[in-house]
Amino acid sequence: MGSESQAADQLAQEIVSKLRGAMGAEGLDALLPMSPDNLAYTAGAVPPSLKTVRLRLAACLIPREGETEAVVVALEGPLMATQSRMAKTTTYREFAENAVGKVASSLKQRGLDGGRIGIEETYLPVAFYRALQDSLPRAELFPADELLSEVRSLKSPHEIELIRDIGSAAQRIAESCTARVQAGATEQDLGGMITEEYAAAGGDELTMLVVGSGERSAHPNAPPTDRVMAAGDIVRLDIIGTKHNYYSDVARTAVVGEPTREQQEIYDLLLRVHEQSLEALRPGVQTSDVYRIYRESMERAGLPPYHFVGHGLGVTLHEEPFINEFKSVAVKENMVLCIEPLTMLEDRFGMQIEDEVVITSDGYEPITRAGAMLQIEG
Amino acid sequence: MGSESQAADQLAQEIVSKLRGAMGAEGLDALLPMSPDNLAYTAGAVPPSLKTVRLRLAACLIPREGETEAVVVALEGPLMATQSRMAKTTTYREFAENAVGKVASSLKQRGLDGGRIGIEETYLPVAFYRALQDSLPRAELFPADELLSEVRSLKSPHEIELIRDIGSAAQRIAESCTARVQAGATEQDLGGMITEEYAAAGGDELTMLVVGSGERSAHPNAPPTDRVMAAGDIVRLDIIGTKHNYYSDVARTAVVGEPTREQQEIYDLLLRVHEQSLEALRPGVQTSDVYRIYRESMERAGLPPYHFVGHGLGVTLHEEPFINEFKSVAVKENMVLCIEPLTMLEDRFGMQIEDEVVITSDGYEPITRAGAMLQIEG
Repeated sequence: MGSESQAADQLAQEIVSKLRGAMGAEGLDALLPMSPDNLAYTAGAVPPSLKTVRLRLAACLIPREGETEAVVVALEGPLMATQSRMAKTTTYREFAENAVGKVASSLKQRGLDGGRIGIEETYLPVAFYRALQDSLPRAELFPADELLSEVRSLKSPHEIELIRDIGSAAQRIAESCTARVQAGATEQDLGGMITEEYAAAGGDELTMLVVGSGERSAHPNAPPTDRVMAAGDIVRLDIIGTKHNYYSDVARTAVVGEPTREQQEIYDLLLRVHEQSLEALRPGVQTSDVYRIYRESMERAGLPPYHFVGHGLGVTLHEEPFINEFKSVAVKENMVLCIEPLTMLEDRFGMQIEDEVVITSDGYEPITRAGAMLQIEG
Repeated sequence: MGSESQAADQLAQEIVSKLRGAMGAEGLDALLPMSPDNLAYTAGAVPPSLKTVRLRLAACLIPREGETEAVVVALEGPLMATQSRMAKTTTYREFAENAVGKVASSLKQRGLDGGRIGIEETYLPVAFYRALQDSLPRAELFPADELLSEVRSLKSPHEIELIRDIGSAAQRIAESCTARVQAGATEQDLGGMITEEYAAAGGDELTMLVVGSGERSAHPNAPPTDRVMAAGDIVRLDIIGTKHNYYSDVARTAVVGEPTREQQEIYDLLLRVHEQSLEALRPGVQTSDVYRIYRESMERAGLPPYHFVGHGLGVTLHEEPFINEFKSVAVKENMVLCIEPLTMLEDRFGMQIEDEVVITSDGYEPITRAGAMLQIEG
C-alpha cells in the first residue's frame, strides 16, 4: 500500500471513529451524509455528475457498528469503488431506482429500519425525505446537520496536514505571481499564472479565484477579467480552490508601483486589525467576542466593519464556526479558521487580508501569515 | 439598450409568460424556483457562491400577476441586480436572515400568503420546506417540479438560438482540434486546445470535458489525462459546457491513424443505429418507442444497448424528456434533444456519437450532425 493510500486509510478511520463517537452521544444507529460536502468529508469522494445532474443523489451509510457503504448511481460506481473511503459501494440504476431506496434496503438488511437514523435536513430535498420515511415507517429520522458540522469543525491531524499543504502553497503562489507580473499585464494574465502554479502544487481547481484590480478590487465577486493593471492600482487576490477535497482560502492585497499615502495607511490599519483579531484566538474564547474585537478595532481605525470576520475551513470554504455577531460558539483546539478583515471603498478600491490558522491548546499556530502589502512592478 | 440585453429581455418575457400559462392551468398564485437550474432558467443568473456555500439559498418569486423578484444573500445583490432577468432583487443578511423568510415576507406583502405556491420538492431541503410552511400557515405548498420541467422541455426561439450557437461551436471544435493534433500528443494537449477554442467561441466553462483515449475511451468519466495518444487508439470526445447558461453536449469518436477493420465496422454500426434513432423523432412519438428502436438497432448490430439513448438539453445537461424504457412522454415540437448511442468494450475501447436536434412540426432539424469517424494524424 502506497503512503498516499495509507494516509487516506488513516484519515477514513479518524473520521469514521469521530462520527461514531458523536453518534453514540446522540443515540444514533446510522448516519446518512448526502450533501456534496459531507460526502467529501466521509467518503473522500463526490460523484462528479452530481454537480450537473442534481437528481443523481448519492449517500454514505455509516452504521454505529458494521460496514460503511457508499450508494451512487451506476455510472459512478467504478469511480466511487476506487476513490471512496467507504468499505463498500452499492449502485442504483438511474430512472428505475434511487439513492434513498437503496439506503432503505440496506438499513432493512442490517436490521436498522426501526432505528434512529441521522439525516441532513438542511440538504435532503423534501421529496426524498418523504420517500425515505415512507420506506422506513418505523425509523426515526433525526436531524444530524449539527452533529456533522460540529465533528467537522475539529480537524484530525491528517486533515490539518492536507489544509496546511494547499494553504501554504496558496500563500507562496500569491507572493511569487505578484513578483513575476508587471503593470501592463491584465488580471487574466495574473490569474493564468496563479492557475498554473496552483495546478503545479497539485491543486484540483480554483473554485472561485479573485483577481480584482483598481475599482474592481472593491467588488466582492471579482474573477479575473481583461482589465489592464496600471500603476497606482490596488489588486485584491483571494486564492480559493481545493486539493484532495480540502480548501485553500488565502487573500492578499497588492499595489502596482508605489502605494499612495492613503493606501499605505489603510493597509497598515487593516493589518493591525488583523493582528488584533488573531491575538484573540485561543480555546474557550467565544466567536462573538472575536468578532467584537474585530469590530471595535475597525471602528477605532475608522473603517466600516464587515458582517463577519472569519469562518472554519475544511471540505467546504465556509463552515462552522462562523465568526460573526449572530451566533456564538466556543473556539476549540484543532479548529482551522480563516481570519479575513476587509474594507471596501466602493468605486475606489478594496483591501483584504486573509490567513488560515489552526487552534492549539493555548492559542493558535499560523498556517499562513500576511506581512507588508505585496508589490507589483509599476 | 444593446441587442444582447434586448434578446435577454425578450427571453425573460417568453419564459415568464410560458410559466404563467402553466401556473394558470394548475391554479398557482406564485412559483418559487430555487434550484440552480431553475434559477438559471427563470432569472438567467445563478449566484456564484451558491456553488460553494450551500446554505446561501436563493429564490425567484414569480407571482401569477405583478412584479417578478429574485431573493439572494446580500453579498450577491449587486451581481444579481445587474444580471438577473427578474424585475427586482431583494437581499437577505447572511446568518441573521434567510431566503425563505424573505420570500414569505414578500408573499405576505403581496397578499398571497393564503395562496397556492409552487415549490421544488425535489430540491428544497426539508428544513427550509418546514420553515416556509411555518411562515405561511395558510398557504398550500404545491409540488411544481413537473410543471417547471415540462415548461422547460419546450424551448423558446431565443433558447434554441442560444443552444444552436454553442452546440454548433462544439461540433466545429471537435473537428478542428482532432485535425490539428497528432499522435504523440497527450489527452491534456487535446483537451487544452478544446478548452481554448471553446473559450474563444464565448463558452463559459467546460463543465465535464471527456477526452478518453485507448482503453480510457471506454470509461464513462474520462477527463483528459497525461496519457499519450498513439496510432491505433480510439479517442472519445464529449464537449460538455455552457454559454449564457445553456449547455452544449456533443460527442465524437476519433481514431489515431488508420482504424482497424473491427473499429471501422463497430463505428459504422453505431452510426447506423444513430441514424435509425434519429429517423424516429417527430412530434407525437413516445420516448419509450424511440428507446425501443435504438435498443433493437443495437441488438441487430450485436452491440450491448445502454440504459438510455438520449435526453433533453437546456440550462441543464440532462433534463426532460429522458429517452429510456422507464418512463414515456410524447415528443413535442420545440424540444431540443441529444441522441447519443454509445458502446463500451471494457479494457479495449469505447465509441460514442452524440448529436443535438430540435423537434420541428413534422420531424427534426439537426443542430449538429456526425458523419464519418474523425481522424487524428497517426
